[in-house]
Amino acid sequence: MEKYWSEEFFNASAIYEEGARVRKDVEKNRSEIARILGIKKAEIVFTSGGTEANNLAVLGVFEAARSPLDQSRPISHPHLIISSIEHSSIREVAQEVIRRGGEVSIAEADEKGYVHFETVKKLIKSNTVLISIMLANNEIGVLEPVARIGRVVHEARKENGNKYPLFHTDASQAANYFDVNLEKLNVDFLTLDGSKIYGPKGVGLLATRSTSVLRPIIFGGGQEANLRGGTESPALVTGFAVALQAAERDKEKETKRLLELKQIFIAELERLAPQVQILSSLEEALPNIVAVQLPEEMLSELIVLNMDKQGIAVSSGSACLNLSGKPNESLIRFSLGRRTSKSEIEKTAKVFTQIINHDKIIP
Amino acid sequence: MEKYWSEEFFNASAIYEEGARVRKDVEKNRSEIARILGIKKAEIVFTSGGTEANNLAVLGVFEAARSPLDQSRPISHPHLIISSIEHSSIREVAQEVIRRGGEVSIAEADEKGYVHFETVKKLIKSNTVLISIMLANNEIGVLEPVARIGRVVHEARKENGNKYPLFHTDASQAANYFDVNLEKLNVDFLTLDGSKIYGPKGVGLLATRSTSVLRPIIFGGGQEANLRGGTESPALVTGFAVALQAAERDKEKETKRLLELKQIFIAELERLAPQVQILSSLEEALPNIVAVQLPEEMLSELIVLNMDKQGIAVSSGSACLNLSGKPNESLIRFSLGRRTSKSEIEKTAKVFTQIINHDKIIP
Repeated sequence: MEKYWSEEFFNASAIYEEGARVRKDVEKNRSEIARILGIKKAEIVFTSGGTEANNLAVLGVFEAARSPLDQSRPISHPHLIISSIEHSSIREVAQEVIRRGGEVSIAEADEKGYVHFETVKKLIKSNTVLISIMLANNEIGVLEPVARIGRVVHEARKENGNKYPLFHTDASQAANYFDVNLEKLNVDFLTLDGSKIYGPKGVGLLATRSTSVLRPIIFGGGQEANLRGGTESPALVTGFAVALQAAERDKEKETKRLLELKQIFIAELERLAPQVQILSSLEEALPNIVAVQLPEEMLSELIVLNMDKQGIAVSSGSACLNLSGKPNESLIRFSLGRRTSKSEIEKTAKVFTQIINHDKIIP
Repeated sequence: MEKYWSEEFFNASAIYEEGARVRKDVEKNRSEIARILGIKKAEIVFTSGGTEANNLAVLGVFEAARSPLDQSRPISHPHLIISSIEHSSIREVAQEVIRRGGEVSIAEADEKGYVHFETVKKLIKSNTVLISIMLANNEIGVLEPVARIGRVVHEARKENGNKYPLFHTDASQAANYFDVNLEKLNVDFLTLDGSKIYGPKGVGLLATRSTSVLRPIIFGGGQEANLRGGTESPALVTGFAVALQAAERDKEKETKRLLELKQIFIAELERLAPQVQILSSLEEALPNIVAVQLPEEMLSELIVLNMDKQGIAVSSGSACLNLSGKPNESLIRFSLGRRTSKSEIEKTAKVFTQIINHDKIIP
């Protein structure tokens, strides 16, 4: 990324030689990314991150359905389906859809965070324009049956005899470990985020298989096939492309390595801390997430702060995961990553156990 | 910026120590920027760039006027005033306002690109919610009478007896050379762009003096006082803050230096190429922009490509500047900058003259 900040700082849209050179680099990166996603490079819309990409998918489809870009009939109250465990960016943009006169249905996940395809199927209506189900949940790590739901969507589309419903998945959390090929996943849109794949913060993308069903949410300048205004950042695009290629290259090996660590960690927790409930499974799940439910009286924030004092960074359950209809205040999420070692895993299980047993708690 | 990509890559919203450390850095940068703008740090909304900030100002005010965040009466068809020489991001988002059921009036600039305050005043109606006039034009460099227009806006607001109209200025091009204090400029909102102040591409901000009259355009996560969802990028925020501080520090000296070069360049053009019309003046203008109108039969793109072959990067007039009601296809813009020297200025005038005299033209 360095060279684009300091030397190759030219505008990729400029027609002089320096601009054209930067443009070539951006397009080369775009091609590399497109290859991984199994789409054309013109079907990539770079954004400022996963949140913006999710917003573009939802509002872009919603607005284009209400006032189509082609001769098709407008849908006056477009309907959206999202799962109950989507990221806040999907949940909050769904609220905006309601404010703008649309309808939203929530496909409830089961107690394990799994969104059954039958649940989604039952919610599809004649005015459903978009279904958005994340590929893997960021809080308990469950892998959703996206390709299977995609088949349901395709059947519904055939019945409707038009281009709706469309299908979007937020693959931000999944891209390090699972296949993100749009065709294999049976999705029309897919979100990625730079910072979730060890790339830079401030860049992401919406991969699309049909740009003609989207309106932009940021206007001006004609960049990204008129779908996202603003001068491109070749540094951020390069950082993103390099990160995605590295994720792709290391996917198999890293998944295997983390699954082994996850297995050890879960076994340690079961042995040392039987009073916590382990929410994350080893199968059909992210290999890097272990979420646990604390005993009822325990607040996760207190545990996070105490773990922090021992030099271990864990997360409390955010408002995102809301299986019971209210924010879960006693969920702890352990995230493993490229730098996580076996000894760290063992130490973490030990420290966590001491803290929840009040041996080391500092209120 | 480097350390945030490689080491301090933590999420500024996380509650563990590393997150809090990054948060502190972001907030320190925010304070520095706020001081320069003369606002509170909570009144800064970081965005992906000037285009997004302009979109947020226009759509944010428009949507909040239609469905207010407080108990005030909704305005069903909000009215917007922009000048005829705004950046494409303002012109295109104004089209979106029309698509969403709003009204837009264009304040025509005079033949020198100057937007008279009387022109704006005449267009204000009872349903005018926002006026957006750029501080300095990016194509011919004219400085607009923003503070004076601000007084007109304040009078209109007093007459209306409510919070409208509000006033926005896009100061992206101006920030290297002019004061960007919101109070002195009499504006409610001000846009800045990282890449226009020698900072990183991919970051900008909307400075606000009243966040309660804005709805977000990117939803989710609660960042930026709920006005802009998405994980903050401490690297980009830091790059932006450092760039703005450098611009502020060097403003006076650099303006003086560039004005001298601009004067030399204009004198050289007048001497060598009397057939071109110089559109940029030395007063009330950006010190770094010299725009010229080519003789009628000449296409600027051809001149740009020929200058490029001689190693000189200039720009053709984009669709942005449209004084005559149609795109200007024979405008050339010379941009001076921190690295521009006197000998380059003299060489540029000479090469340009040779090319427009067809001595060196390659069709």
